[in-house]
Amino acid sequence: MSKTMQAVVKAAAAPGAEIREVKIPDFGPTDVLVKVKIASICGTDLHIYEWDRWAQSRIHPPLIPGHEFCGEVVALGNEVTTVKEGDFVSAEMHVACGKCLQCRTGEAHICQNVKIIGVDANGAFAEYVVIPETNIWKLDPAVPQEYASILDPLGNAVHSVLAGEIAARTVAITGCGPIGLFAIAVARAVGAAQVFAIEVNEHRRKIAAEMKADLVLDPSTQKVHQEILDRTGGLGVDVVLEMAGHPSAIRTAFDIVRRGGRISLLGLTSKPISLNFSEDIIFKGITIQGINGRRMYQTWYQMTALLKAGKLDLRPAITDRIAMKDFSSAMERLKTGEASKILVYPNGSRMG
Amino acid sequence: MSKTMQAVVKAAAAPGAEIREVKIPDFGPTDVLVKVKIASICGTDLHIYEWDRWAQSRIHPPLIPGHEFCGEVVALGNEVTTVKEGDFVSAEMHVACGKCLQCRTGEAHICQNVKIIGVDANGAFAEYVVIPETNIWKLDPAVPQEYASILDPLGNAVHSVLAGEIAARTVAITGCGPIGLFAIAVARAVGAAQVFAIEVNEHRRKIAAEMKADLVLDPSTQKVHQEILDRTGGLGVDVVLEMAGHPSAIRTAFDIVRRGGRISLLGLTSKPISLNFSEDIIFKGITIQGINGRRMYQTWYQMTALLKAGKLDLRPAITDRIAMKDFSSAMERLKTGEASKILVYPNGSRMG
Amino acid sequence: MSKTMQAVVKAAAAPGAEIREVKIPDFGPTDVLVKVKIASICGTDLHIYEWDRWAQSRIHPPLIPGHEFCGEVVALGNEVTTVKEGDFVSAEMHVACGKCLQCRTGEAHICQNVKIIGVDANGAFAEYVVIPETNIWKLDPAVPQEYASILDPLGNAVHSVLAGEIAARTVAITGCGPIGLFAIAVARAVGAAQVFAIEVNEHRRKIAAEMKADLVLDPSTQKVHQEILDRTGGLGVDVVLEMAGHPSAIRTAFDIVRRGGRISLLGLTSKPISLNFSEDIIFKGITIQGINGRRMYQTWYQMTALLKAGKLDLRPAITDRIAMKDFSSAMERLKTGEASKILVYPNGSRMG
Amino acid sequence: MSKTMQAVVKAAAAPGAEIREVKIPDFGPTDVLVKVKIASICGTDLHIYEWDRWAQSRIHPPLIPGHEFCGEVVALGNEVTTVKEGDFVSAEMHVACGKCLQCRTGEAHICQNVKIIGVDANGAFAEYVVIPETNIWKLDPAVPQEYASILDPLGNAVHSVLAGEIAARTVAITGCGPIGLFAIAVARAVGAAQVFAIEVNEHRRKIAAEMKADLVLDPSTQKVHQEILDRTGGLGVDVVLEMAGHPSAIRTAFDIVRRGGRISLLGLTSKPISLNFSEDIIFKGITIQGINGRRMYQTWYQMTALLKAGKLDLRPAITDRIAMKDFSSAMERLKTGEASKILVYPNGSRMG
Repeated sequence: MSKTMQAVVKAAAAPGAEIREVKIPDFGPTDVLVKVKIASICGTDLHIYEWDRWAQSRIHPPLIPGHEFCGEVVALGNEVTTVKEGDFVSAEMHVACGKCLQCRTGEAHICQNVKIIGVDANGAFAEYVVIPETNIWKLDPAVPQEYASILDPLGNAVHSVLAGEIAARTVAITGCGPIGLFAIAVARAVGAAQVFAIEVNEHRRKIAAEMKADLVLDPSTQKVHQEILDRTGGLGVDVVLEMAGHPSAIRTAFDIVRRGGRISLLGLTSKPISLNFSEDIIFKGITIQGINGRRMYQTWYQMTALLKAGKLDLRPAITDRIAMKDFSSAMERLKTGEASKILVYPNGSRMG
Repeated sequence: MSKTMQAVVKAAAAPGAEIREVKIPDFGPTDVLVKVKIASICGTDLHIYEWDRWAQSRIHPPLIPGHEFCGEVVALGNEVTTVKEGDFVSAEMHVACGKCLQCRTGEAHICQNVKIIGVDANGAFAEYVVIPETNIWKLDPAVPQEYASILDPLGNAVHSVLAGEIAARTVAITGCGPIGLFAIAVARAVGAAQVFAIEVNEHRRKIAAEMKADLVLDPSTQKVHQEILDRTGGLGVDVVLEMAGHPSAIRTAFDIVRRGGRISLLGLTSKPISLNFSEDIIFKGITIQGINGRRMYQTWYQMTALLKAGKLDLRPAITDRIAMKDFSSAMERLKTGEASKILVYPNGSRMG
Repeated sequence: MSKTMQAVVKAAAAPGAEIREVKIPDFGPTDVLVKVKIASICGTDLHIYEWDRWAQSRIHPPLIPGHEFCGEVVALGNEVTTVKEGDFVSAEMHVACGKCLQCRTGEAHICQNVKIIGVDANGAFAEYVVIPETNIWKLDPAVPQEYASILDPLGNAVHSVLAGEIAARTVAITGCGPIGLFAIAVARAVGAAQVFAIEVNEHRRKIAAEMKADLVLDPSTQKVHQEILDRTGGLGVDVVLEMAGHPSAIRTAFDIVRRGGRISLLGLTSKPISLNFSEDIIFKGITIQGINGRRMYQTWYQMTALLKAGKLDLRPAITDRIAMKDFSSAMERLKTGEASKILVYPNGSRMG
Repeated sequence: MSKTMQAVVKAAAAPGAEIREVKIPDFGPTDVLVKVKIASICGTDLHIYEWDRWAQSRIHPPLIPGHEFCGEVVALGNEVTTVKEGDFVSAEMHVACGKCLQCRTGEAHICQNVKIIGVDANGAFAEYVVIPETNIWKLDPAVPQEYASILDPLGNAVHSVLAGEIAARTVAITGCGPIGLFAIAVARAVGAAQVFAIEVNEHRRKIAAEMKADLVLDPSTQKVHQEILDRTGGLGVDVVLEMAGHPSAIRTAFDIVRRGGRISLLGLTSKPISLNFSEDIIFKGITIQGINGRRMYQTWYQMTALLKAGKLDLRPAITDRIAMKDFSSAMERLKTGEASKILVYPNGSRMG
């Protein structure tokens, strides 16, 4: 094995990123070294690339980003027992402390001291990545490799959908980025009665339809609230999955949820959101949930079970497959909404 | 409208039943008179027909049995407001008192004073049946008429499947009478990862396969426990839906459920069942639920939503369609297991 | 029985109310006529009295207000079966339609078509009040009469406290009006580990201490957030019960709740509330619930059980006992915060 | 520090145990060495002492038993970070594997590969015991030392009581060994409306009364079922905590639970238990739970919070305090029921 590797490196506190030759990372006794087969691009990676306010406050260059991936185990720390060389794996990239109240009571997804690989430590846009054994997720051969590289955002979708009752319920998804798109597939797979997808971007609406949303609505031209009342007997939807993080989408979420319904919030926004608590929450008796990450490891078992059973067709959301050298141009495609989920092949296995 | 009608009458405290001309029933100010389109036959009807020990203790002849049906509203008590003549309806036949603790806390399905139409009062194997307005379930035109006649047992299945977490879970169904068969369809529709059907009767196993169980097992010739361990990574299943009410099926249920799993018990048995509480329940940390009837009316909303959305294909379980005059011969077919769900047409609309 | 009675009447669309001689109300076959023993005053009554914007939009004078009371059954509609003359009763004053989705699925407290006696129909500040049998709550003799007149706000408190896990949890209550005060007692009774009461009004803080809050904080002079972190190992509280409906109290609620905690919102506010969804809700993974009314009738069983068992000492919150003729001056005392719960004796039984 | 210590040793596959001088145990990099202050005796220790069938199948002598204790940290493995020398601690003695489905989904209390210190490895009836850091529970100074030595059985009680809704509910506890007695205190602390204790042994009934059970019943002389119906309005109890593991107590549990209630089973029995599934479970719509161990570490947080808040008075159940040399005579007292919880002082700190 060579001692160096190619990687995407955020080298400086400024926009952009570059491909560099860097040292293959060292690993400790409880770590696993994985040769990355596919790493996929998240909106967070775009924030880091563009060096927005959030990135400036969180990221300490130099950093190799990338927190969605799959690959093959090539070396093991000497205390590792649950995987072996040659295993095909992905990983939960939120490394929880294991010691706080949340970690010790089954809520590690909101650990007080979490570190995210690809954000707080070097990640997967590289030929190799180091992962602690605790966070490795060994893949069943029945899971397609491309899907194996997007378990992180798929897990966000599964966590959101299954955060409350969903079977036989009507569901609206506000915002059809990759997680919103995956949520369409997941909601359908677990018996949602109707899935409404709400999205302003034309490209994304097209994919939402391909993911088999029962109805795709464009809030810029359609009366979303009225359309949904018409299709729910005047009630509104049982469940809203808010995946946009945009004030008008959030407003829609509160408008369309029925009395007693739930709103699961995943889409991040730095803008203040204004609500009328009496009308929006209290009289309607709704429940609002903040959804962060994936439940460790309940969500992973759930999504693996759904994938193994062939219940999820995620192909329409995978729009681009690129070699790592084309990372910067992929960033541009992501911004337009033309690309949804972009798969990066660091070892050139596909792109030659 | 004539003043008399044809009906199946359990006339005496003895086996059998006969077709008689009887008075069309009177109805009160809060009642609805329904012209029966289809009534379907339940195992309970066979108990009444055969006059077994349970029937002897519960039934007071003369009685018109029948508690699964659909039909058209033809007359209304003067205080009825939520349905009108011509509406197509089914009904919850458990008439709850509305006044006991259970009724007043959302648990009317285990009302202390329940009366069952078709068991404790005249039922639906007749051209007309009287139903209190509270119990009428107005049907969406999207629900197929044949399915509309089997909402009672379908509701048992929905209640059982949705009595705990089910999405992405492995499920075993012990006993494939109609409710077990419906449970296969429901479990699949709401995202069960794998559905194992366990049944000794060859006819029923064949239908279970048509209902798309992932695996159908014959406990008389196959090692059920081992087969299920093999397909669940040695864990056992997350959920068992016990629909047989037979000691060996119940034994299997406890053997195959995983640590921390649930067993939902619906199949009735008069035989004492012996368990090793320490090994079967406590060390495994399982949960066992008694499932009775359908939740009023959560289950009805759930099954209507699934049916409207076209998520359930129940056709393989509907094996026979007969005119009411052939009721007695239908009883014979039921006993063999060749027939699963038998639809009776009291008004001869289909059979001519 | 006389044909007229004394009552508080909101006669015109203007501030104020007057004591008038009015006709004793008629009642229908499913109604119960109750001779009011004690009626207590709610903040809503003050809104009606002062004729604020909410009152102007909701109330149609003439109206007898009053929706918290207890009394003796003196006459019955001819279809009433569950109470008899002489029974001592209170009532759920939210009259639910019984026919909407929410009513039929155990969520009648958020009925789409609710009518509130004392708001939408004549209420209990009168010698007699008419209540539908469905809404009558028959009182166990073990429940003190004074407490019997405040089951409505006590029920709000019980509903809020028991809307999620509470045993062994730390709880903060923002706002110590009567419902907040009752919530202190309820939270303690059901095993909250620590109860923090947060209130700007000095009178109310004094009562909060008498209700045995573990710590009473004044946000106008104390660093509430820091105090609570200090007493919760730096975590924040597990549960916040927001009873103030004031923007700064709501801000505090989101600041002090721990990751994974819950905020139950009961305090009404017409002002828009601004939140940072990412920081306030999503990253913390909290759950927010709108709490409306009381669960019918789960909450009523719960509070009756607690009262019968002597688990609640509510006396400090009952500050005033008045004859009905002093209604207007009671309104003034309520505004200052000096009075908390004021009991009105319409039949002069106490005040002579 | 000496290299040897005194310990209770089960030296041979035969009844009895002896006090021996043995080597102070070695510990690894992730372990903690604790000087035992108090170790308390469990019924399991009696099984081991008497060498019953269960002990013969599970125990591999030589073994130091003892799995309930508290003490002071005296040495640390070099990877330990969360405790330091001098800390006062107890421990969860079920050492879960951390790698099975149950461990990875918040159900470590039913780990597939659990090892119990004091059963499968040397335990706490010794001057020193070795505990993995993961299992150490650091004690708040507010927790009394005697209580600190009984967190294991107290945790069983907390786990059982809080395994479902309990506030404002009626509760029966069948069997008043130490865990049943603790359950009385816990149920009261978290707002159970009435606590019925059912126990045949006179000594235990006396302690149950001292623990403030609302009613203590002797099934050998009283009509338990009728007494409970009389005190619950004819309903039966909402919750049964079965702590006896005796067939007649289990029979009582099913008789007295109300429709829709729960039975939490903790008491172990090797005898087969026979039920009528239809009458006992299905028609009543009850839920039955197997309770094993303590939730890791939710239960530990819960009981610590209750103890810190001073909500539990456990003193009546602590009947004996002995020096370790008197271990064998303590076993005799345990058998009679005269002793409930016996505290052992291995380092003679109390007994001199």
